[in-house]
Amino acid sequence: MSELHAARRERLRERCSAAGLDAAVVTRPANIRWLTGRSPDTAEGAALLLTRELALLAATPTAREAPNWPGSGGAQGSAEAPADPDGLREVEVPLGADPAVVAAERAAASGVGVLGVEEHALTVSRHREAGRFLSPGRLADLDRAVERLRVVKDDEELACQRIAAEIADQALGELLESILVGRTERHLAMELERRMVDHGADTPAFPVRVGTGDHSGVAGHLPGDRRVEEGDFLTVSLGACYRGYRTAATRTFVIGGPPEDWQKELHALVFSAQRAARESLVPGRPCQDVDLAGRQVLRDAGRDGGVLRPAGYGVGLEIAEDPRLGPGDMSRLVACVPVTVGQGVHLPGRGGVRIEDTLVVRPDEEGGPELLTITTKELLAL
Amino acid sequence: MSELHAARRERLRERCSAAGLDAAVVTRPANIRWLTGRSPDTAEGAALLLTRELALLAATPTAREAPNWPGSGGAQGSAEAPADPDGLREVEVPLGADPAVVAAERAAASGVGVLGVEEHALTVSRHREAGRFLSPGRLADLDRAVERLRVVKDDEELACQRIAAEIADQALGELLESILVGRTERHLAMELERRMVDHGADTPAFPVRVGTGDHSGVAGHLPGDRRVEEGDFLTVSLGACYRGYRTAATRTFVIGGPPEDWQKELHALVFSAQRAARESLVPGRPCQDVDLAGRQVLRDAGRDGGVLRPAGYGVGLEIAEDPRLGPGDMSRLVACVPVTVGQGVHLPGRGGVRIEDTLVVRPDEEGGPELLTITTKELLAL
Repeated sequence: MSELHAARRERLRERCSAAGLDAAVVTRPANIRWLTGRSPDTAEGAALLLTRELALLAATPTAREAPNWPGSGGAQGSAEAPADPDGLREVEVPLGADPAVVAAERAAASGVGVLGVEEHALTVSRHREAGRFLSPGRLADLDRAVERLRVVKDDEELACQRIAAEIADQALGELLESILVGRTERHLAMELERRMVDHGADTPAFPVRVGTGDHSGVAGHLPGDRRVEEGDFLTVSLGACYRGYRTAATRTFVIGGPPEDWQKELHALVFSAQRAARESLVPGRPCQDVDLAGRQVLRDAGRDGGVLRPAGYGVGLEIAEDPRLGPGDMSRLVACVPVTVGQGVHLPGRGGVRIEDTLVVRPDEEGGPELLTITTKELLAL
Repeated sequence: MSELHAARRERLRERCSAAGLDAAVVTRPANIRWLTGRSPDTAEGAALLLTRELALLAATPTAREAPNWPGSGGAQGSAEAPADPDGLREVEVPLGADPAVVAAERAAASGVGVLGVEEHALTVSRHREAGRFLSPGRLADLDRAVERLRVVKDDEELACQRIAAEIADQALGELLESILVGRTERHLAMELERRMVDHGADTPAFPVRVGTGDHSGVAGHLPGDRRVEEGDFLTVSLGACYRGYRTAATRTFVIGGPPEDWQKELHALVFSAQRAARESLVPGRPCQDVDLAGRQVLRDAGRDGGVLRPAGYGVGLEIAEDPRLGPGDMSRLVACVPVTVGQGVHLPGRGGVRIEDTLVVRPDEEGGPELLTITTKELLAL
């Protein structure tokens, strides 16, 4: 694995050179993980300094206790460990010190002229502190270089996401076999989280969402004390995190007897909207097409009222990363990019339907989009 | 409740005036919650603009679906809702817009001269965007004004923290009555999280930590697949979040028969170190005294090797807020400030003991520090 990370760091070095940067300090946890395999729990936990010769990971004592911090033989205190076989050195910063500042100081000491930092991930205060060691104007913006490198996934990353999706599918499948009536949204959510961990997830990819009755079909509804009742719609949004990689899926079911007509119609509408969105996942098309295709189906049915969120996002080490698939997103879809694609309609006071998948963009000649979240999207009556 | 928030906003206005600021934009979620009762899930979810006349909460559609967003009658789309009885107006920002930028634009339109922003909570990119609407140099730093106002808690806040502590105590008490041998750290942690929610917690205050055997006594050890065995130390760190307010407690037990001598000695040592730290919680004394008192006990016993973290932090809407109780923290302890106080020793390869409480600083004439986390600190054999 560490050879892979070294190769990624090399790609970032090339980007930096091309952009006129002598070195970079990376602070965003997901970016650090992608470049080193190690992940601090917080944004202030670690910073990676990458010069032409050096890869130095500065981290707090707490960050180095995190579960995603493989035993590294790193030094305690501020001593510096020898580099690993692929050239990564690790240093523990003193209590209370900011790893970004330590990394910038080290860059200055190494004679770095222009240092790229993540202006979208560094607060103004930390940026000011980091800049103290360099002449004015010598801090530049990395301009989301690591995020852009991370968009297209390699086979190993996709393999992790396939497993993450399977774990969530298993957990959901088991839950659906149990008695649901009378249980609260919160309880169902916690059971799903536990089952995913039982099946090998590091953690849930995000807090599981469960909405029943009037709460069904609401994107992002956090579970509360409402109990599942006969005749309810039940919407579940879940995903697992496996070796850092995430997926998301949303499904809507009916509780008890056969669905009523309005429920069947609403489900069929959302199903076709989400299918239209999925079918627009074609390399070379603008990202916004995915959103517009789904939205058009809802609009034609007079149901586009409250859809304020984009149809989806890229998904990988983070649950909503580049690209965004929303109105106005004109960048082009690219193969080997996993994205979420969701559509939903909520009728205030009655409930609604939401359906969401994680798929990998693939060209037609490879069979089109690869569905990772394979659990059925049928309107099951539970 | 909203009267209370209006009074808090008034105090912030006074601070701003005194600091020469015409208005403030607050973006840190815990600060927004303290000032409005509403809390977005992410740092980019909302921004509160406070001018002399206006309190305007700009929020994304997603933030306004968060569970801590009480039904506000706020406007959908970018229309603006009428102010609530205490003068708070709410506006939903368009999809993809940054509430901080919307708030800054509104400040500029209101003729604000100098605008205070939270430089410790705003990235360089967002700060730059927000500054586009103001003449150069018209953005100033709020300098953690809200954090400083939040340090001393009122009775309602302390009441929430008492309940949070009770919830965690109950969950821990129940767990200790069950069979522990053979179960994994991860399972125990999830059970504790579930039990806290069952007892009324909004969420856990932080991911529950469970360490057994060699992992016991390690601060911040995240639970893994190790199973509890006879003779192990078992360290559990937990806390509940109740109406946004948090506490933390850490306890260490022995599994199976009576503890061995080394276990009894280690526990007694950590217990006295933590007691010494607790007893230093006296209004007017420097914060660092708490840490130094505990550390001295460990040092006298030759066990101060790896203690790199401070003894504690303030705790309230966040689990580690101001003040910090570590070496070099010279600010003075103040009454009605809840803090965590922890001490621990870990012997590599054998395990260790960690004990931590949440207490409210109180003067001697009120009986000294008020212990919120009342679960026994005895070395129970389970």
